[in-house]
Amino acid sequence: MCQLMGMNANVPTDVMFSFAGLAQRAEEHKDGFGIAFFEDKGLRLFVDPASARHSVLAEAVQRYPIHSEVVIAHIRKATQGRVALENTHPFQRELWGRYWVAAHNGNLVDYQPRLHGAFRPVGDTDSERAFCWLMQELAKAHCQVPSVAELTLTLRELLPEVAAFGTFNLLLSNGQALWAHCSTHLHLLERRHPFGPTHLADADLSVDFAAHTRETDRVALLATQPLTRDEPWQALAPGELVVLQGGVRVV
Amino acid sequence: MCQLMGMNANVPTDVMFSFAGLAQRAEEHKDGFGIAFFEDKGLRLFVDPASARHSVLAEAVQRYPIHSEVVIAHIRKATQGRVALENTHPFQRELWGRYWVAAHNGNLVDYQPRLHGAFRPVGDTDSERAFCWLMQELAKAHCQVPSVAELTLTLRELLPEVAAFGTFNLLLSNGQALWAHCSTHLHLLERRHPFGPTHLADADLSVDFAAHTRETDRVALLATQPLTRDEPWQALAPGELVVLQGGVRVV
Repeated sequence: MCQLMGMNANVPTDVMFSFAGLAQRAEEHKDGFGIAFFEDKGLRLFVDPASARHSVLAEAVQRYPIHSEVVIAHIRKATQGRVALENTHPFQRELWGRYWVAAHNGNLVDYQPRLHGAFRPVGDTDSERAFCWLMQELAKAHCQVPSVAELTLTLRELLPEVAAFGTFNLLLSNGQALWAHCSTHLHLLERRHPFGPTHLADADLSVDFAAHTRETDRVALLATQPLTRDEPWQALAPGELVVLQGGVRVV
Repeated sequence: MCQLMGMNANVPTDVMFSFAGLAQRAEEHKDGFGIAFFEDKGLRLFVDPASARHSVLAEAVQRYPIHSEVVIAHIRKATQGRVALENTHPFQRELWGRYWVAAHNGNLVDYQPRLHGAFRPVGDTDSERAFCWLMQELAKAHCQVPSVAELTLTLRELLPEVAAFGTFNLLLSNGQALWAHCSTHLHLLERRHPFGPTHLADADLSVDFAAHTRETDRVALLATQPLTRDEPWQALAPGELVVLQGGVRVV
């Protein structure tokens, strides 16, 4: 199994602190890591089939404060598909003139969706097949980029069809919103004023967000397991779909 | 105008030396840089709207020896499209289960191709429009990934249609081959045994490739202007299409 991390904020925010926590978990989840940063419509995607604990790229990401409104990160423990760059999450496609990114935690059994559209997997994971199928079905359901509310309605129909094949914790974004589907383990934290100090769950590292934030800042985090030990992470329910926009939960 | 660099080799090869030369030219070409590395079917794409001279990311790329069979790099001086992440080359799409990457040097005047297929630009450059149109037309011409020879025949028909709108120096790859279309300035160098010392044209930096290579290694480089001062770079002719595979020119 893998671990996921997602971030959505109303102002460009860095995830150095949270990613440092996630990277600590890469001792076990050693088969690659990836992190996608949206900056408006633009996208930076870093993927490495090496462990985030030892990857030079992961080290650079931790030292380099990329400010972003939406982040999706993943550390991989291979279940399906060999350890290879093309099997490393998050995956990226373009639809309606927007980049889309997805990362998956879980395992889909005998999942071979009919891919007759413009989206084909490059690697051989169940996760990329599911992402291509979602893109294909979204492309059929709307002729151009719809509102976040409309996209959410469509995703609410599509996601259970994939989840029926196994465990499907998914983070998905097109830069406008961050969708999170919980199948087993996914936790949500909404940070807002008053900001205060917090400590990573996995490392002896703390930060006082009060020193780095303004009253109006809103930051929402998603993670397979809570990343900090002194904040009110909420466990999502199986089948729950959370939509984050502007740093807050809108659905 | 921008500057391009491409590399194709028969064994995974790093481009730290060549990219150091290209980055020197980023004083003038300061509106972003990008570099794409294919590792078999996998792809790493680094883009930054900052100058390659000052980008933390460019510095990381220069220190981190990524070994790759195909590399496409670009430093940007904006002509069309504002300085933004989504306007930074190279651009990436997926077609037939392969990632495709393109970078463009030049300027296309009043170029508004009809984009009715599955490829839409995310940014607002002439370059990304041209790339989307090429992907759309390739998708119409073949139903799955054809041979490099067949793709070359199709590209030979498509590229002049774009080039008719202005200057169109293009590097394009799907990881199997590297296609280079010359409109004005593009130079080719084929390195092979016996390898020897060479000096960058733009910096006081030299390397002796004999120490890092085997007799069977083949490396081909493309650049807007020659990157080294003591090697036999050949200027391509206007309208010329070069195809590199396994580190040698196959067309």
